[in-house]
Amino acid sequence: MDELSLTRLDSGAADFEGRLAALLARGEAADARVQAQVAEIIRRVRAEGDAALREYTRLYDQFETASPKDLELPRGELQAAWDRLPAATAEALEVAAERIRAYAERQRLESWSYVDAQGTRLGQQVTPLDRVGLYVPGGKAAYPSSVLMNAVPAKVAGVGEVVMVVPTPKGETHPLVLAAAHVAGVDRVFRVGGAQAVAALAYGTETVPRVDKIVGPGNLYVATAKKLVFGQVGIDMVAGPSEIAIVSDGGSDPEWLAMDLFSQAEHDEEAQAILISPDRGHLDAVEAAIRRLLPDMERAAVIRASLSGRGALIAVRDLDQAVTIVNRIAPEHLELAVADPKALVGRIRHAGAIFLGRHTAEALGDYCAGPNHVLPTAGTARFSSPLGVYDFQKRSSVIFCSPSSAAELARTAALLARGEGLTAHARAAEYRLRDRP
Amino acid sequence: MDELSLTRLDSGAADFEGRLAALLARGEAADARVQAQVAEIIRRVRAEGDAALREYTRLYDQFETASPKDLELPRGELQAAWDRLPAATAEALEVAAERIRAYAERQRLESWSYVDAQGTRLGQQVTPLDRVGLYVPGGKAAYPSSVLMNAVPAKVAGVGEVVMVVPTPKGETHPLVLAAAHVAGVDRVFRVGGAQAVAALAYGTETVPRVDKIVGPGNLYVATAKKLVFGQVGIDMVAGPSEIAIVSDGGSDPEWLAMDLFSQAEHDEEAQAILISPDRGHLDAVEAAIRRLLPDMERAAVIRASLSGRGALIAVRDLDQAVTIVNRIAPEHLELAVADPKALVGRIRHAGAIFLGRHTAEALGDYCAGPNHVLPTAGTARFSSPLGVYDFQKRSSVIFCSPSSAAELARTAALLARGEGLTAHARAAEYRLRDRP
Repeated sequence: MDELSLTRLDSGAADFEGRLAALLARGEAADARVQAQVAEIIRRVRAEGDAALREYTRLYDQFETASPKDLELPRGELQAAWDRLPAATAEALEVAAERIRAYAERQRLESWSYVDAQGTRLGQQVTPLDRVGLYVPGGKAAYPSSVLMNAVPAKVAGVGEVVMVVPTPKGETHPLVLAAAHVAGVDRVFRVGGAQAVAALAYGTETVPRVDKIVGPGNLYVATAKKLVFGQVGIDMVAGPSEIAIVSDGGSDPEWLAMDLFSQAEHDEEAQAILISPDRGHLDAVEAAIRRLLPDMERAAVIRASLSGRGALIAVRDLDQAVTIVNRIAPEHLELAVADPKALVGRIRHAGAIFLGRHTAEALGDYCAGPNHVLPTAGTARFSSPLGVYDFQKRSSVIFCSPSSAAELARTAALLARGEGLTAHARAAEYRLRDRP
Repeated sequence: MDELSLTRLDSGAADFEGRLAALLARGEAADARVQAQVAEIIRRVRAEGDAALREYTRLYDQFETASPKDLELPRGELQAAWDRLPAATAEALEVAAERIRAYAERQRLESWSYVDAQGTRLGQQVTPLDRVGLYVPGGKAAYPSSVLMNAVPAKVAGVGEVVMVVPTPKGETHPLVLAAAHVAGVDRVFRVGGAQAVAALAYGTETVPRVDKIVGPGNLYVATAKKLVFGQVGIDMVAGPSEIAIVSDGGSDPEWLAMDLFSQAEHDEEAQAILISPDRGHLDAVEAAIRRLLPDMERAAVIRASLSGRGALIAVRDLDQAVTIVNRIAPEHLELAVADPKALVGRIRHAGAIFLGRHTAEALGDYCAGPNHVLPTAGTARFSSPLGVYDFQKRSSVIFCSPSSAAELARTAALLARGEGLTAHARAAEYRLRDRP
């Protein structure tokens, strides 16, 4: 078994900036071969519809459909999966769904309008998307929590139809995933996956309806397909490996912090877990806790690889400097394990989700705190937001001039239009200087 | 001179669906050669910084910089351009900027939080982007209105620094564009354009600062570059040719409608202008007006090409059917030229901007009504929104558990985490069942 090797950085060191940059650097996954392969899958599903979709499903999932209608999971199966759940599991899923729903309700955008001083009514009309596709990975890495986090906000937004796709290798379904789909109110489920499922959702086939936006996690083929169909449909962010940064003032139990770092690192060997503290003795204590607890972890090998490859304990001058470094990292998850987290949170400019205080474990947010666990990774919190109800709504601007307000605006518009050489614009505006219908 | 050929469709015809689909079909501009060329430009600017940027600027813009600092337009030049404007133009720009600002203020997202029944504080912290890049095309197609529409919402959002890039072929600047940048509060201007300017904004050079998001229109090279740097930075939508759909009940002046169609068509030979009405005689009258007015238009050739290639007059059964077709089109701009537009607007599910009533010319919205003129094209209003203040803000989820609320959430989280095989998540949650720090 490999040794754990933990990177220790000190903000006072001369090479700190360079080492931090190296720690945060991400490989760029532009794989031309995968791209070509995915483009061909999309082309064929678009051209041949169900026939291509069934062929790829046979090839990649070893799942044979007797007829196109077998691509769809019979409606009763979600309810059936739900009915078979142990009571405690059903209750936990219900609690999580209810909390995700309650938070999502607060995010809903509402239409508004006002009349300005000249008599023009101006506003914004908010509407839900008609139909959304939710990609759910199959096999053992299937996460019911991810079904809730993607489907519940769509339903809260008022999306007309939520269509889930999930590969069922050799026909095998995942009971918890189906039960989560039931509790989240997913409308239809198709047993397809990979780039072919993304293509079917983007363009529609005889059996799979075309959607307006595709959300949900997936492997490199799924992510590449989503990028390629973007524009034809909307997509959510393409997520990178998961990350956490923890700021500790030294007062938290080192074992708690070690376990929070583990819970990030166990996702994936590429996951990143970073602890920042002004207390060097505390960093030593957390490192000792990591070394003590790691051997007992079920996913010790993944955690060891992740912490050795991408983890770090960073000593800083003070909490102010910790905040500066956090804003530089723009982490997906941020824990503020400090005595007075409210004093720091307002200075955090870039983070996907912020967990305040010693008791707010990041893992609570992954399942049931309420806010979404689909969050911007790889520094994209600099310019993007958690998945939310607003991702399933869109806005139309609304403008309603009175004859007199139109005339007033027309003067300004015509002058500017002529400045741009767009004389039909100018004339269209000037017609509204007259009072005819 | 070519003849105008106007497509007439009738919703009652057997082939209507197919003809409408053909009318709306868009070529897909995936040009592998351009993509490779742009990727190489980005690679070089990223690796070589200012040196590559200056070389490309010399090559493509015939603009020679004596030193890297010449890449930046001296700060005084915006003010100087403003001071030289004719009074009427200055006033029009100021009126437009003020109206865009007033509408944008209404869009600003605010942070919120609440404490749930168990004592967990949950919220959403809204922050502006640190730095935004605004691409402005150079030469004769430079649009001061576009500078206002992109820069003003960024400033209203509270973006720390708005950095504009604009190519200056042979060193030539566009006075109205600089004056608009002044009035919009643009912070810095660099005299670069093309894919090299996008690359400089995305990665930074010695002279050009790295930004967090790039917005603004551009040619195929600029659009391709924006797509390629997406993820490294945020981008706005990649816009297609402009479009309008007009629903008329027959009561509007045919010349007004003809001119509104022209004002869309004059943008570009690929622009699309569609009129929908249940009144066939009225469609004839508008067609006659089009033929009568077209020869006098300054941009007659562009309008003729656009209307012949992509325009249409569509006869429908009634206004209900018009609404159905509009939702199918999901137009960038929609005019409801009807007696009671309020009765229709709530049934419009997909449109970038909706202009209500006979007096609200679309051209007013292009310049000074207030709502943004950067709108989703090519049917993307099905899933996206006008550019707005919200595009320059992002959200962080905030979660703050009390010891007792953490313990309560921990039970649910641990159960679900074990269901997903993520035992470090479960243990991290379970630590919060104890009352230690």
